[in-house]
Amino acid sequence: MTMAGEDEILEWIAGRQKTSKVVKVAAGDDLAVLEWPEGERLVLVGADQVLDGVHFRCSEISDWSVIGRKAMNRNLSDCAAMACMPVAAVVTVALPKGATVEQVKALYEGLEAAGAKYYCPVVGGDTGVWAGPLAVTVAIMGRATGSKPVLRSGALSGDGIYVTGPLGGSILGRHLTFEPRVHEGRLLAASRLPTAMMDVSDGLLKDLGRMLKASGGLGAVIEADKVPVHADAVRLAGQDGVDALRHALSDGEDHELLFTSTARPPVGIRIGKVTAGGGVILKYEDGREEPAAASGWEHRLG
Amino acid sequence: MTMAGEDEILEWIAGRQKTSKVVKVAAGDDLAVLEWPEGERLVLVGADQVLDGVHFRCSEISDWSVIGRKAMNRNLSDCAAMACMPVAAVVTVALPKGATVEQVKALYEGLEAAGAKYYCPVVGGDTGVWAGPLAVTVAIMGRATGSKPVLRSGALSGDGIYVTGPLGGSILGRHLTFEPRVHEGRLLAASRLPTAMMDVSDGLLKDLGRMLKASGGLGAVIEADKVPVHADAVRLAGQDGVDALRHALSDGEDHELLFTSTARPPVGIRIGKVTAGGGVILKYEDGREEPAAASGWEHRLG
Repeated sequence: MTMAGEDEILEWIAGRQKTSKVVKVAAGDDLAVLEWPEGERLVLVGADQVLDGVHFRCSEISDWSVIGRKAMNRNLSDCAAMACMPVAAVVTVALPKGATVEQVKALYEGLEAAGAKYYCPVVGGDTGVWAGPLAVTVAIMGRATGSKPVLRSGALSGDGIYVTGPLGGSILGRHLTFEPRVHEGRLLAASRLPTAMMDVSDGLLKDLGRMLKASGGLGAVIEADKVPVHADAVRLAGQDGVDALRHALSDGEDHELLFTSTARPPVGIRIGKVTAGGGVILKYEDGREEPAAASGWEHRLG
Repeated sequence: MTMAGEDEILEWIAGRQKTSKVVKVAAGDDLAVLEWPEGERLVLVGADQVLDGVHFRCSEISDWSVIGRKAMNRNLSDCAAMACMPVAAVVTVALPKGATVEQVKALYEGLEAAGAKYYCPVVGGDTGVWAGPLAVTVAIMGRATGSKPVLRSGALSGDGIYVTGPLGGSILGRHLTFEPRVHEGRLLAASRLPTAMMDVSDGLLKDLGRMLKASGGLGAVIEADKVPVHADAVRLAGQDGVDALRHALSDGEDHELLFTSTARPPVGIRIGKVTAGGGVILKYEDGREEPAAASGWEHRLG
């Protein structure tokens, strides 16, 4: 690092990483050491990054805790989508040369606060300064704890299709402030009802297409009037002239859970039904049907 | 992503991530699912990044597999330093806009080849394109398997100080091609002799200082003529006029193991002794002693 206050910030970060019942060794060694509960053998793991100009714009964000929260919450949302309990995260940060100690602390506090809400401490990682823009990677670990991970490949023909909340227009700000559906994921796992589950990160139709493909090439009928349209989608429609429903179907970064279930689940809004094939059909209230074109979100900021 | 061949490359990456005895779910879901061996409860985890202009220079590397290998090997070296067995890795890659499909495949193959050597598959992560330079983060998981993780905080006054190989001058190329000392770490753990261990990433004196500090503020006497000086350090000394021993003591990115042991270990070159205090003293063959100033490596490329 070449940043002013480098040693201060690295010590500050290390000082915040503490041991706990699960975390046997935190900051300051080559790796962190976690102890899994007795009898639990599944370790879920993934990593996701947020990049300046793609997932946020540094130039428009004065408080970097927002960036830290988004980075952590995207990973917590992956835990939610697998119906697992977050356990711990490791974080790498590539800092632009002009970053201030205050910005770095805010970033880290954002990561930490988002994780703490779901008992997911940051236990290690790496921070460095470079000539590039801000990049933050979070790798997260979770445990299954009493229920099997819910994959995206288990949907069955005839299952209902559900989402946990309204969709669309996240670009107006919600993409930075969404709440990962960790509790909903655990509740659903406890009910043992979901046959397939994932989070909506690239748009409902695009992600549904992936789920149906992973489940062996199934189809779906989506009832257009049942799709919960977020107020942001309506607001965005007023700005860009695109139909609010289209925003709900195609916008990314909602991070609601999308799942299928044979019986009525404890949470979720039913939006349609899995079919044996025939692609994804949009069905309107007046009986009209049309194939749903999946134009998903792709790094809209970029 | 906006790169030409985006879908091709993402499918190619996903296709290479496969299930195994340990990996129950690999690519294509929200998280990978690993199954730990029965009765093993410790999960070791860490993350490290390599950044263009800091840890390598894209402009000087035509074959990106070199970058992938370095990224993975730095993390494998952390496993070695904890004396654990690598289990799996997740990887995020931020690609510059001009990256070609061939470069991305080479990068990934480098990550994969380095991991495969120690049975450490890549099981997930994220790849995106942005306006910034190339950044690669690897998060790694390991298991202790029959021996306790060796921390850097266990050194005792009177212990011998050892390294697993010659040091210095890695900037001439070895920083890209070093071999992580995973086998040596496991061998040492099996002997149960090392009291403290870490890898030399920022320079022998700097890292030794950290180990002594973590072990409660101990000191050390290093016998200058026992420190194994790498041929690269001699070569570099010929170029820059700095003493080869100084390079061996201060250069970073050697990734040899540095450890302390009460009895003679199965591998390692003895370079000195832990003392109760008094800082780190360099002792020469002629009996002369001097305090060792720890000027470690800091992103020399940057």
